[in-house]
Amino acid sequence: MAHLLSTSCTLKIAPGCKPHSRLTQDSLAFSASFSFQASKSPFKSIRLPGERFRTNSTLQETTIPSSGFRASSGEDSKAEKVMVIGGDGYCGWATALHLSKKGYEVAIVDSLVRRLFDQQLGIDSLTPISSIHNRVRRWKALTGKNIELYIGDICDFEFLSETFKSFEPDAVVHFGEQRSAPYSMIDRSRAVFTQNNNVIGTLNVLFAIKEYRDQCHLVKLGTMGEYGTPNIDIEEGYITITHNGRTDTLPYPKQGSSFYHLSKVHDSNNIAFTCKAWGIRATDLNQGVVYGVKTEETDMHEELCNRLDYDGVFGTALNRFCVQAAVGHPLTVYGKGGQTRGYLDIRDTVQCVELAIANPARSGEFRVFNQFTEQFSVNELAALVTKAGKNLGIEVQTTSVPNPRVEAEEHYYNAKHTKLVELGLQPHLLSESLLDSLLNFAIEYKDRVDIKQIMPSVSWKGIGAKPKTVTA
Amino acid sequence: MAHLLSTSCTLKIAPGCKPHSRLTQDSLAFSASFSFQASKSPFKSIRLPGERFRTNSTLQETTIPSSGFRASSGEDSKAEKVMVIGGDGYCGWATALHLSKKGYEVAIVDSLVRRLFDQQLGIDSLTPISSIHNRVRRWKALTGKNIELYIGDICDFEFLSETFKSFEPDAVVHFGEQRSAPYSMIDRSRAVFTQNNNVIGTLNVLFAIKEYRDQCHLVKLGTMGEYGTPNIDIEEGYITITHNGRTDTLPYPKQGSSFYHLSKVHDSNNIAFTCKAWGIRATDLNQGVVYGVKTEETDMHEELCNRLDYDGVFGTALNRFCVQAAVGHPLTVYGKGGQTRGYLDIRDTVQCVELAIANPARSGEFRVFNQFTEQFSVNELAALVTKAGKNLGIEVQTTSVPNPRVEAEEHYYNAKHTKLVELGLQPHLLSESLLDSLLNFAIEYKDRVDIKQIMPSVSWKGIGAKPKTVTA
Repeated sequence: MAHLLSTSCTLKIAPGCKPHSRLTQDSLAFSASFSFQASKSPFKSIRLPGERFRTNSTLQETTIPSSGFRASSGEDSKAEKVMVIGGDGYCGWATALHLSKKGYEVAIVDSLVRRLFDQQLGIDSLTPISSIHNRVRRWKALTGKNIELYIGDICDFEFLSETFKSFEPDAVVHFGEQRSAPYSMIDRSRAVFTQNNNVIGTLNVLFAIKEYRDQCHLVKLGTMGEYGTPNIDIEEGYITITHNGRTDTLPYPKQGSSFYHLSKVHDSNNIAFTCKAWGIRATDLNQGVVYGVKTEETDMHEELCNRLDYDGVFGTALNRFCVQAAVGHPLTVYGKGGQTRGYLDIRDTVQCVELAIANPARSGEFRVFNQFTEQFSVNELAALVTKAGKNLGIEVQTTSVPNPRVEAEEHYYNAKHTKLVELGLQPHLLSESLLDSLLNFAIEYKDRVDIKQIMPSVSWKGIGAKPKTVTA
Repeated sequence: MAHLLSTSCTLKIAPGCKPHSRLTQDSLAFSASFSFQASKSPFKSIRLPGERFRTNSTLQETTIPSSGFRASSGEDSKAEKVMVIGGDGYCGWATALHLSKKGYEVAIVDSLVRRLFDQQLGIDSLTPISSIHNRVRRWKALTGKNIELYIGDICDFEFLSETFKSFEPDAVVHFGEQRSAPYSMIDRSRAVFTQNNNVIGTLNVLFAIKEYRDQCHLVKLGTMGEYGTPNIDIEEGYITITHNGRTDTLPYPKQGSSFYHLSKVHDSNNIAFTCKAWGIRATDLNQGVVYGVKTEETDMHEELCNRLDYDGVFGTALNRFCVQAAVGHPLTVYGKGGQTRGYLDIRDTVQCVELAIANPARSGEFRVFNQFTEQFSVNELAALVTKAGKNLGIEVQTTSVPNPRVEAEEHYYNAKHTKLVELGLQPHLLSESLLDSLLNFAIEYKDRVDIKQIMPSVSWKGIGAKPKTVTA
């Protein structure tokens, strides 16, 4: 399947498009100290017709110090230019808009393969989503803000190099991975694809940072699922262990429970090494399960609308329950339903990423934050959705289905999540009003629901070596 | 570089060669209960001219129970057929011969890419080594024992599947990985190759076991380097942690210090998951640094001679020191020389692997053994070689060279290694006589030494994105 991703390409959407170079004549006019190095890059970013080379209202970009960080008086250093890898996805799109709104220069790097998965599996977002090209055009039209677009595969290092040389990011937010546990458990080829794509893509990002932007801050999306469900408290990345009279602080033991989760564990280990060996600055955001669909920015126009997955492969617990409730399908609890995880509102995802960028890791630091706001068991979520349904006059049933996963269904779970709060996170806790809103949103789009997509279709034990077509 | 490994092929070396199938007419004559399933495999193993389909002296292979293990009265169950992946390499070749000698039916699976690395890097084994074809022919001529040969890449699942269907292993010993830390740190393409090759190869082995031989015992070579150098005792795979009043036994935290070491960490995590999810039975042998070259079997004939690497990429500490001493080159201690690791004689490598096979992990068990016999610091090794040199009338100098790696040069190190001893390992501890013998061996071949290969040529910090040709 890897060949499906080898679609890196140079795009030009308008005759007026200029080749993208940081050192055009426009910008050189303001430059005092740059040593001239003409870009030989054949790459062109997508620019709207008639757009001039962008400048920052407070600072000419040509005067950004080579460290890549702007020191503002009385403020911490702040990343100026943020590359969002996977910026067409569920979390990536919301994050790209949020950062653009907040004044960062944003580039989206995406192979768009997530949209291909939908086609291949015969599934679809509950919400209709515009093409990435229309999305960035609409954003520009609404806000005047440009988001550069690089379409290609980060496993293609030549492509990734050109994006780095062209955009020169101060921070990279890396959402660009195959992000579904069930997808990674469909068959051998998807398992291999997931680990190859995620691990090699991240290795390439690390090499690109080392080679082209060594002060660039990597903000990498991990998952709380890396930790598994140990019978002790889960700390944020590290644990201090006293053993046989000696003490050390070591990486928290990981127990990934799918080839997807394991790919994130591999990434974390690789990144930690490069921080130590090369001085990479990195933040690993071990994110919980994200729910919700609207952020302030995606809600501005229907063409900015985010995707919402409810199917058995890409759908996640709370979002899926709301869609099930909206169409009168029983909530599908896997097994006993005691599975407890950390959850967060997508509005907190974008907030957390911004906090990480605004407060970068030190050179050589591998910093780990647990990115969620509340813990719920599946049964607790089902009860909350049932109650929300009642408020809206919907009778919600719950049914236990055989657990397609291999996981503990009743277990201890207590995961720390204070570091992002210390940086200023103001959580949107799960409230009745949010659940009402999400449920109403699902009802609004319920005619788009394909009932056949709802049930789990991938079995952890049933995965085989032969290619499998998942049909809903 | 991955394409270099896509060289899986079907080999036929003699017109008299018969297609390999477990159910030939010869064997069917003894079969009472087999349901006939003709192999459609186009694969042929290498068979010597005139050789008949092999039979076991005590048991017709067609009567092996479907579990794949033979229950002998008064003995533990014993694997009958062992597939040695990477059986042309330093540890793999010695192991394949040892197991064959001990009565196991052995098949070697190897892409021979290790020999290609030598060609590409311009390096060579101290000892002249025969082709794998000549090696197995010579073994057969000397002992009457057949070793089947499958030449191909385990990253090619179609190839691997055919080897499983054809050979039907009861145990797989997996040495088939890129095994040099410096190699993985030459450039980006070698880093990516190492992780892709090792991780995907191992995933394929796991899928092949699940699909074709679900009771097959995986004996996987890991490395002590997975643990790094924590400031607490290193346990065998797991550690019991009491934290905030609760206790759990969790995977021992890993801190790989090269892309190679990290690939082994990734493997361990993947294997552990499949033991839990699929019931795979696996033993992870976290091996220390291996020294020596002769085993009882490789010493039987010059065509069976094992390789001995002394170069800066594939050479390991003690072997390299002996070669340096033999040619009058100062022993190259990296940095302060306080780096302490576990070491073992190659005669113990083959003994440990046999013990693991003879005492298989239970179904679903992920068992971890630390496979080494003694700890030494680099400075201690240098002192031992200096003393051995004096015994032979050689004056040995030692020099400190800038450490090309990123590692602690003075640190606590105490790693447990009792489990293999409990299974019966009788260690060959490093003695003066062994060192004398190894040094004499190096002197015997010293005219083959290329002095330019001795110094370290790969820097952990200097690794770049661009392809690099390492010239000695």
